[in-house]
Amino acid sequence: MTVSTRFTQRFELATPIALAPMALAAGGALSAACARRGALGLVGGGYGELAWTQREVTLAYQLLQDAPIALRRLGCGFITWKLDEDASALDWLLDQAHTPAAVMLSFGDPRPYAARIRARGAALICQIQQLSQLPSALEAGAQVIVAQGIEAGGHGVNALQGRSTLAWVPELADALASQAPQVMLLAAGGVGDGRGVAAALMLGADGALMGSRLWATQESLAAAGAKQQAVQTNGDGTARSAVFDILRRKNWPAPYDFRAIRNALHQAWEDRIDVLAKDPQAARADYDAGVQAGDFSRAHATVGEAVGLIHDLPAAGELIERVTLQMHQQLQRFGPQG
Amino acid sequence: MTVSTRFTQRFELATPIALAPMALAAGGALSAACARRGALGLVGGGYGELAWTQREVTLAYQLLQDAPIALRRLGCGFITWKLDEDASALDWLLDQAHTPAAVMLSFGDPRPYAARIRARGAALICQIQQLSQLPSALEAGAQVIVAQGIEAGGHGVNALQGRSTLAWVPELADALASQAPQVMLLAAGGVGDGRGVAAALMLGADGALMGSRLWATQESLAAAGAKQQAVQTNGDGTARSAVFDILRRKNWPAPYDFRAIRNALHQAWEDRIDVLAKDPQAARADYDAGVQAGDFSRAHATVGEAVGLIHDLPAAGELIERVTLQMHQQLQRFGPQG
Repeated sequence: MTVSTRFTQRFELATPIALAPMALAAGGALSAACARRGALGLVGGGYGELAWTQREVTLAYQLLQDAPIALRRLGCGFITWKLDEDASALDWLLDQAHTPAAVMLSFGDPRPYAARIRARGAALICQIQQLSQLPSALEAGAQVIVAQGIEAGGHGVNALQGRSTLAWVPELADALASQAPQVMLLAAGGVGDGRGVAAALMLGADGALMGSRLWATQESLAAAGAKQQAVQTNGDGTARSAVFDILRRKNWPAPYDFRAIRNALHQAWEDRIDVLAKDPQAARADYDAGVQAGDFSRAHATVGEAVGLIHDLPAAGELIERVTLQMHQQLQRFGPQG
Repeated sequence: MTVSTRFTQRFELATPIALAPMALAAGGALSAACARRGALGLVGGGYGELAWTQREVTLAYQLLQDAPIALRRLGCGFITWKLDEDASALDWLLDQAHTPAAVMLSFGDPRPYAARIRARGAALICQIQQLSQLPSALEAGAQVIVAQGIEAGGHGVNALQGRSTLAWVPELADALASQAPQVMLLAAGGVGDGRGVAAALMLGADGALMGSRLWATQESLAAAGAKQQAVQTNGDGTARSAVFDILRRKNWPAPYDFRAIRNALHQAWEDRIDVLAKDPQAARADYDAGVQAGDFSRAHATVGEAVGLIHDLPAAGELIERVTLQMHQQLQRFGPQG
């Protein structure tokens, strides 16, 4: 059997999975490996650092010179509010000879960037975290909406206002069915294996965006020590808060915060974030020393609750294959012949 | 097609759904309606108030005198830490001539109550919110574990430490497969329609526990004004915090807090809960007046994120039928003949 959805058809995919464009982790090698195995490979343009984006996107293109279909599965993602400060990486991407399959925007208003992305022939993917963000994504002309739940690693909307994936995806599917039925939907946040992808399809999504599980692969650019910590951490072991953004001197706007492994330094500050925000110097020095030393009791490891499903660090292509097989097995369990 | 799982087989169910034993909402009429249509009907024994439990359990038994199979689908749930203060409602339940199908315990250590429940021939269902709570549930001899996510309405573990359903269920399924493969697993939190139940099965659960969606039915004992507010609220409109427990003078222990509709009174206090906890008198008077007046901008409406999937207030039996049909449709979409 093959799972075919609007998403796999539109992007010539062999499996309804997209690599989450994780800043500084989803580089050229990881994106290319995912695209080669049939998933949508989104480079993590992240904070819009031009040199990083140039290097990693160029690497992905080079790695797939022998595979024209896989090459057409490459795209890039950006943090929208950082583009408001500097959009040179997006401009560079759209100036290349190769047309990216898609540009994904998250965390901000996509409308100022939509026209130039669509004019270049790239699909516009908008990630949203609340129903209230849907109108501007539709106004921007998004062809794909990603519904991100708070269980996701890295940035997202804080737990007070954010949504968890399981109820969020079907509600958004209903909203799209009535307002913009041609727009596709992906589930993001907590999808760590084939069971999660199958669940996303049941919830009404056309596919799933996977972050943490692909972060924990050989090709990921995440630090080796962070990956090892993830293998040893169960799903109880992450937390979402402002702690690491303060320690990392990141000026993220409300309502966003950050999920990572809830290490010792996080636990030391999570109950007094106001104090940390007012006087962060000592804690930042502690954090910086942890990063220098590769000590992940102080440095952050950016994974979501799906970390509880991570027990090894395989090659990304092998992982996509494993997830796809498990998805197929699950989908057939209760089918007409099941 | 009929969906058959270990859970439906064990409890003679026609659909892999259990009514969440919602305190003061899941009374005898709602439990009986669910059991009659083939779901497990758990009365919301909640805080263990003896007279309430006696009245509602007796009503459920009476309503199903004509339906012996449905009668065998009735059980009751309790808040475990309240039993530590007064277990008379549990004792009364276990003294009745009719054996309850199951007793569900949540929010505390189930071990002191496990022996008498199992000795009476009732299945022990333990709801947990973190992987760290699994060992005591297994030690108690739970036959069913409910994995509750933070998107659930009412009480649960706070968002910093709690889990979202989508990644939590498969991780727990793996833990049970290796530690206690005979123990069944239900998903709870955010399951609001047939898509959610189908997703729960894909995640490795044997069924789903539904709260909010069954709270919003004709038979539910929730206030009419609260139900109307739920129909008009989308999934962005709930929040999890300590606000309503403080306003309601409930002395819940850590790490539990409470999700309900994020009404005006909640919004007024959610950013200064420390202040509210120290000096709650004025806010409590405001809340009490809201309850008296049936004003749900101040009184609480106890629903989770699945409120975004609630658009009407049907009879519970009709709802179970609708959810089951949609579950079947979803499960067949990608099956071998799909």
